[in-house]
Amino acid sequence: MSGDMVTGELTFEKVKGAAALIAPVIQRTPVLCSEFLDTEAGAALFFKCENFQAVGAFKARGAAHAVARLSDAEAARGVVTHSSGNHGAALAWAARTRGIAAQVVMPRGAARSKVENVERHGGRVIWCEPNIAARERAAAELVAATGAVFIHPYENFDVMAGQGTAALELMEEVPELDVVLCPVGGGGLLAGTAVAVKGGRVATQVIGVEPAVGADAWASWQAGRRVTAVAETMADGLRSQVGAANFAVMQRWVDGIVTVEEAAIARAMRRVWEELKIVIEPSCAVPYAAVAEGAVEVRGKRVGIILTGGNVDLDRLPWQVVEE
Amino acid sequence: MSGDMVTGELTFEKVKGAAALIAPVIQRTPVLCSEFLDTEAGAALFFKCENFQAVGAFKARGAAHAVARLSDAEAARGVVTHSSGNHGAALAWAARTRGIAAQVVMPRGAARSKVENVERHGGRVIWCEPNIAARERAAAELVAATGAVFIHPYENFDVMAGQGTAALELMEEVPELDVVLCPVGGGGLLAGTAVAVKGGRVATQVIGVEPAVGADAWASWQAGRRVTAVAETMADGLRSQVGAANFAVMQRWVDGIVTVEEAAIARAMRRVWEELKIVIEPSCAVPYAAVAEGAVEVRGKRVGIILTGGNVDLDRLPWQVVEE
Repeated sequence: MSGDMVTGELTFEKVKGAAALIAPVIQRTPVLCSEFLDTEAGAALFFKCENFQAVGAFKARGAAHAVARLSDAEAARGVVTHSSGNHGAALAWAARTRGIAAQVVMPRGAARSKVENVERHGGRVIWCEPNIAARERAAAELVAATGAVFIHPYENFDVMAGQGTAALELMEEVPELDVVLCPVGGGGLLAGTAVAVKGGRVATQVIGVEPAVGADAWASWQAGRRVTAVAETMADGLRSQVGAANFAVMQRWVDGIVTVEEAAIARAMRRVWEELKIVIEPSCAVPYAAVAEGAVEVRGKRVGIILTGGNVDLDRLPWQVVEE
Repeated sequence: MSGDMVTGELTFEKVKGAAALIAPVIQRTPVLCSEFLDTEAGAALFFKCENFQAVGAFKARGAAHAVARLSDAEAARGVVTHSSGNHGAALAWAARTRGIAAQVVMPRGAARSKVENVERHGGRVIWCEPNIAARERAAAELVAATGAVFIHPYENFDVMAGQGTAALELMEEVPELDVVLCPVGGGGLLAGTAVAVKGGRVATQVIGVEPAVGADAWASWQAGRRVTAVAETMADGLRSQVGAANFAVMQRWVDGIVTVEEAAIARAMRRVWEELKIVIEPSCAVPYAAVAEGAVEVRGKRVGIILTGGNVDLDRLPWQVVEE
């Protein structure tokens, strides 16, 4: 399956298939631990470091899988997406691994670091006004004009299956996890993670964590149907509204969704930098924030945490804004 | 050998012996690479990540070795050192791995993060005035009063041998390196690294890199005898004057010493954060700064870089001071 139609379904077999297909190009990222963070949490925490992934984010996995699944004829026409964040760079990178072109529609005002990350991987940036209608129109025009294949950042089963491969590796490396936490924005990672985890060990809980500011996934979860909310969280990778296909997968396989406040995200990000000595972006700190704040009960448990990415503007660190 | 007398010598056998002795307690740290940093340098760069070491710095190696080499009778009386930096935390940590007490003389005004790092590992901080005479007197008084063994931060062959084990691991993991770079402050790491590298492969060059501000090791190297210089570099781990025993080892085994300016250190630190997604402290960025600035000729070479530590005050990042 490819393109902008959301059809098909997400299965454990598809996630395993994705892992095999993308193995030649992606990094098998390390799992880090910290005695001090464990002591604070009263739990055993296993951090799956997708900040070390190609393009600095797990998004490389989904993009690599979607690109790998294109027929030669499709691939020859190139790929298109819209993204203000890591998916754009991931698609540019994935396209280059197959030697094809990638065009990325980005809103004016997108973070400089994200734009540079698209361009350095050979992607062509197409500017649009910063609203959803404008970016969808711009992407549709590119598809119409060039025949390129549209790869949605998350509402695409190949992308979801690719994102699930991070959890697959984590489960292989760390057996008997009690719970796996990941952030939720559009729901690509959470859907893929849930299917990967439940397929491997049904007793392991899967919890999505979302910024409380504009918590549409949490509200949707409570309501049992998709609800929108305006997200202005510092976790810029999580401002998307949860996708319909993603929400359907989540309703079936996810055990819960919890939220965390902005100050908690900033504190969690800083703690991870201090203790693990790694650079993570705000979106990436969201699941650990839920642990640190007690938003999920982890005492005595073995907890897997997907650290999603490390692309951050070093001139604008959140603790300089939130806590000073 | 232990204590504050500098006797004996540093040999490849001692470094290998140190590696075996400390293996149960230290981390075997990863080696990271970056396609982008390689392209910029026109070289293959291999970063040995001692920022992931216990206590966040390579200093754990030397301290662990010095503590492991104590007799039971010596160990029972505990250990003492003076340090404004990572050696204090390293000795506290190493002492705890053997279940003995550590006292660390620190100057008033030492960085809060360094003080906390001593205390969190169970070390007792003894304050002194911020000058060399005061800290040496305070340490001597503690030794006299308690019988504890003094472990110098770098002018100690057991410490040097321990520090050399990082390069030993790097050489095992990455064969045929053309050059190995590490920072030089007191010279513990550089002496250990030189003996480890030359013992394994005599054709591999060993270059020490020092901040140009207060470059006493560089000046001593030029003069052929120890020369002092006042160092106020941002690379706070490298402000020490090179030790006599360290300099003797360096004169025999090191191929050269180069210097880098403060702004180059800040830029290098930032580039490593951005590209490798890891947190390193200013002192740690010094060797990569030499590569980025062309202070060492690396084009077409395989270059090992010891990244020494990741203990940094996140409220005071050098690019906010130097480059803004």
